[in-house]
Amino acid sequence: MSQLGATRYGKAEVRIVRIGRGEAPDGGDLIRDRTVSTALSGDLADCYLAGDNRNVLATDTQKNTAFAFAQRLGDGEPERLAIELARHFVSSQPSITRARVGVLEHDWTRVGTAPHSFVRDARATRSTVVVHDGAHGTSVLGGVQDLVLLNTTDSEFWGFPREEYTTLAETQDRVLATEVSAQWRFRSDDIDWAGAYRGALDALTTAFATTYSYSLQQTLHAMGVAVLDAVPSVCEVRLTLPNRHHYLVDLAPFGQDNKHEVFHAGDRPYGLIEGEVIADDAPDAGVAWS
Amino acid sequence: MSQLGATRYGKAEVRIVRIGRGEAPDGGDLIRDRTVSTALSGDLADCYLAGDNRNVLATDTQKNTAFAFAQRLGDGEPERLAIELARHFVSSQPSITRARVGVLEHDWTRVGTAPHSFVRDARATRSTVVVHDGAHGTSVLGGVQDLVLLNTTDSEFWGFPREEYTTLAETQDRVLATEVSAQWRFRSDDIDWAGAYRGALDALTTAFATTYSYSLQQTLHAMGVAVLDAVPSVCEVRLTLPNRHHYLVDLAPFGQDNKHEVFHAGDRPYGLIEGEVIADDAPDAGVAWS
Amino acid sequence: MSQLGATRYGKAEVRIVRIGRGEAPDGGDLIRDRTVSTALSGDLADCYLAGDNRNVLATDTQKNTAFAFAQRLGDGEPERLAIELARHFVSSQPSITRARVGVLEHDWTRVGTAPHSFVRDARATRSTVVVHDGAHGTSVLGGVQDLVLLNTTDSEFWGFPREEYTTLAETQDRVLATEVSAQWRFRSDDIDWAGAYRGALDALTTAFATTYSYSLQQTLHAMGVAVLDAVPSVCEVRLTLPNRHHYLVDLAPFGQDNKHEVFHAGDRPYGLIEGEVIADDAPDAGVAWS
Amino acid sequence: MSQLGATRYGKAEVRIVRIGRGEAPDGGDLIRDRTVSTALSGDLADCYLAGDNRNVLATDTQKNTAFAFAQRLGDGEPERLAIELARHFVSSQPSITRARVGVLEHDWTRVGTAPHSFVRDARATRSTVVVHDGAHGTSVLGGVQDLVLLNTTDSEFWGFPREEYTTLAETQDRVLATEVSAQWRFRSDDIDWAGAYRGALDALTTAFATTYSYSLQQTLHAMGVAVLDAVPSVCEVRLTLPNRHHYLVDLAPFGQDNKHEVFHAGDRPYGLIEGEVIADDAPDAGVAWS
Repeated sequence: MSQLGATRYGKAEVRIVRIGRGEAPDGGDLIRDRTVSTALSGDLADCYLAGDNRNVLATDTQKNTAFAFAQRLGDGEPERLAIELARHFVSSQPSITRARVGVLEHDWTRVGTAPHSFVRDARATRSTVVVHDGAHGTSVLGGVQDLVLLNTTDSEFWGFPREEYTTLAETQDRVLATEVSAQWRFRSDDIDWAGAYRGALDALTTAFATTYSYSLQQTLHAMGVAVLDAVPSVCEVRLTLPNRHHYLVDLAPFGQDNKHEVFHAGDRPYGLIEGEVIADDAPDAGVAWS
Repeated sequence: MSQLGATRYGKAEVRIVRIGRGEAPDGGDLIRDRTVSTALSGDLADCYLAGDNRNVLATDTQKNTAFAFAQRLGDGEPERLAIELARHFVSSQPSITRARVGVLEHDWTRVGTAPHSFVRDARATRSTVVVHDGAHGTSVLGGVQDLVLLNTTDSEFWGFPREEYTTLAETQDRVLATEVSAQWRFRSDDIDWAGAYRGALDALTTAFATTYSYSLQQTLHAMGVAVLDAVPSVCEVRLTLPNRHHYLVDLAPFGQDNKHEVFHAGDRPYGLIEGEVIADDAPDAGVAWS
Repeated sequence: MSQLGATRYGKAEVRIVRIGRGEAPDGGDLIRDRTVSTALSGDLADCYLAGDNRNVLATDTQKNTAFAFAQRLGDGEPERLAIELARHFVSSQPSITRARVGVLEHDWTRVGTAPHSFVRDARATRSTVVVHDGAHGTSVLGGVQDLVLLNTTDSEFWGFPREEYTTLAETQDRVLATEVSAQWRFRSDDIDWAGAYRGALDALTTAFATTYSYSLQQTLHAMGVAVLDAVPSVCEVRLTLPNRHHYLVDLAPFGQDNKHEVFHAGDRPYGLIEGEVIADDAPDAGVAWS
Repeated sequence: MSQLGATRYGKAEVRIVRIGRGEAPDGGDLIRDRTVSTALSGDLADCYLAGDNRNVLATDTQKNTAFAFAQRLGDGEPERLAIELARHFVSSQPSITRARVGVLEHDWTRVGTAPHSFVRDARATRSTVVVHDGAHGTSVLGGVQDLVLLNTTDSEFWGFPREEYTTLAETQDRVLATEVSAQWRFRSDDIDWAGAYRGALDALTTAFATTYSYSLQQTLHAMGVAVLDAVPSVCEVRLTLPNRHHYLVDLAPFGQDNKHEVFHAGDRPYGLIEGEVIADDAPDAGVAWS
């Protein structure tokens, strides 16, 4: 005999673009370009067990709601949109006890002073995940992904165990490159979201750039601490950092001396470093990361 | 003040191909084509906090070990490879208390009776995740991904709430299509892995095909139960099923009557249905899903 | 001063699924799952130069037409659909002098004897490109892509020039793997399309498997000739074959002797071999490859 | 009987990163991050027909050469690297009569004033393709891809034919978005490559932003002309512009009036507009586009 465990269902990757006509300070337009995913949990056993959809707010309805709220909230921050959506689903549907709303926000930059023209700025993708739960309340994660950083030097890696399967040479100078995926947990659901994002993004980038590194793990920790220091409304940071290996190319067979100049950027395999940093006074995470 | 939380580091996506020359029953070759990812946890605070790598088994060493074990274990099943690797890392490194090894196995099929020739069979990718922990012991997940299934009929969707944002029409006949990602937890670390995979794959496919569906949630549950029924060594199944929407095309403007014949296969958004089914007597999961 | 050169416009990647209910010999269903792209050329200068759309059959209209024809042609072969569409655009629009229609066909396999259930069979994707031109008539290309083949042995590579930048060792035994992209030109627009595809696919696979290879170039030529031999209605074959390198892993540091057993499958860079084989009596290609 | 047609072989997607230490005007570092692909043609029939590799400069050798030249040319422009490589292959190998070298250049931006730290700037990828041929000499294409542009207004689409399959409504105001892929042919092989790229990129972006558009075709032509006007060393421009449709969402069922504010960004299908603009005095293209 078996029972139903945890469930969740929703609409994934609704691509919503909202244009704020004339809303820029100089009278130009604004753009909010987002990928919204919603997922609901609750009293859904009848659906899973017997195909009774009485409690199933259709994923198509979830999509419609996301579009409608995107208009209502106008140029609001993505965290705001996610909070309003998550609360709406739980408060309007008795059967739904928890909603998880994720938003990726894609950046655009105005083309010079042209009021209506934009160029995609793919340097980083802003993310948020909001979980609103009838019992636990609202939790908010901010985050960033697709941010690729590289230090040309000031990175070493040595002193690691040399055992049966170890062939890697120690190095006192290497290229260190990564693609940052980070999420941070906010202490509250009512803060300056845009300011927090800018602060966290700057803290991550600056910490990567200024940490003299003996391992990507060490750099990861420094980046997490930097976000906590820069954004007091954040109480926890989780980072996933692939180590994008750059291999020095051996040019000696061709009579060339390659002094840390020409590298082969490998694809796979890659190192993958994960870790989190938590403020000592961080409140309980509850279902924030679920 | 802050502290270091959970950490994990390793080598991701090592592409290992092992050829078993003459090992097929008919004297032909065998292939094992895998993507192996390892991740270690333990006493790593000195590395994250201070760049002291004394306890850091290099990710390059992890890669080497994966290649070496792939040879030693020959044509063994992927679960076996993952178990051996995970245990090795924990037993050989005092500082490492937990190892997580994931293996994706890519299928090949012999070309007719040619002994040395193969064609990639991308119908499904087999997966396994093994976590070996000093305290919790060894847990093994099996799984499959990239398996795309479609029913042309025998799927309805109606009876869902009609509220403010609901515009979806009810339907008594729709195409139901999904790309299966499933993982299942084994009760033990010593079973017939190949037989279990075949049994689970067949159970998933058959349950999808034979369930008259009133919702993808219902189908998901039926698929999970089918795996439990078919493979007694499995005690828990988790499924993630995107609903790949097929929209009936309106051909009436062109004087054509489209009776459930021609559909537009949409990309995004898509429904995303998740759920798990657990045997009543399932042992505690411990860190199996970590 | 400048002038407008060659132009082309259309709708790309229309995903059309057509279900033939009860049309299989055993009373089960059939599926045709296609990605259709159309592109038109002709008297379009007024549009490009002045934004006058009088001659511009909207890409949305092209999409509608593709759906309508997909229904009308039922379970017809993709080459048939492409021919009918291309001719329709040219014959119905005085301003359009040439149409190019590409179709990718994605395979599905019935699940056992279940009449309505299918599993995606991603082993190979069938392709066709039809160009219909008012002056040149109709040309038809068939093709296949995503077909991944591997020989475990019977492949050598030696005797190549050794010059200043050459470090590669010669080898008398290597793994040879590739992902086949092939297109072939038909002599006529009225043949047994399904039979020709099966014949070409089998010829490519068999030639790869049975050619003792001294270079992937040699194998490419053998594959092209095999298609010409197997399918008399084909007069020209073009092949693009990436050389998916498999590197023997050095396990000697770990005391293991790796006798052509364990390989690392690299991603990038990769060799890329292109070539064509033409029947001596092939008619002029005209605009077939445009 | 058949014969061998056109052939080409080489090494694709060699990922080369070159670091110029202290070479920036302020004493910081420079980065050149490139994906290099080489392809050679010539007297290769013995290889294709008989597996005789006497004339086959190994693709591994081509890769080595690319790395070696990347060091020698230092911070040189990608067109320079491609020209030197292409000429080297033809001049050093009697059997090779033509070389085609493609380079994609990925942008990085310095992190503030940190001398050694960079962030990937994925706004656009610079491209070049050089063909050097014993008979035709050297031709050089520049280009850009991955450049995503959007106008929030100043785009109409109407006046197109309304026929049997036309359902699209005319519009006097739409969002116009595209991802630019452009290539331009230079008149010479010795010009200010960096200046030409900056000029062309700026011309494309500005023309897109400032053209009041009645069709994407018209915008394409304006973009091509703008490059010719801005960069006199360019004589021909080819553009491929997908029309990334933004669909106005119907919010009326929810009592909301959506005045060109909230859009659904579709994935597929998409319009695809191609065209070229040629200077009246453009020299013959020869094999530049082969």
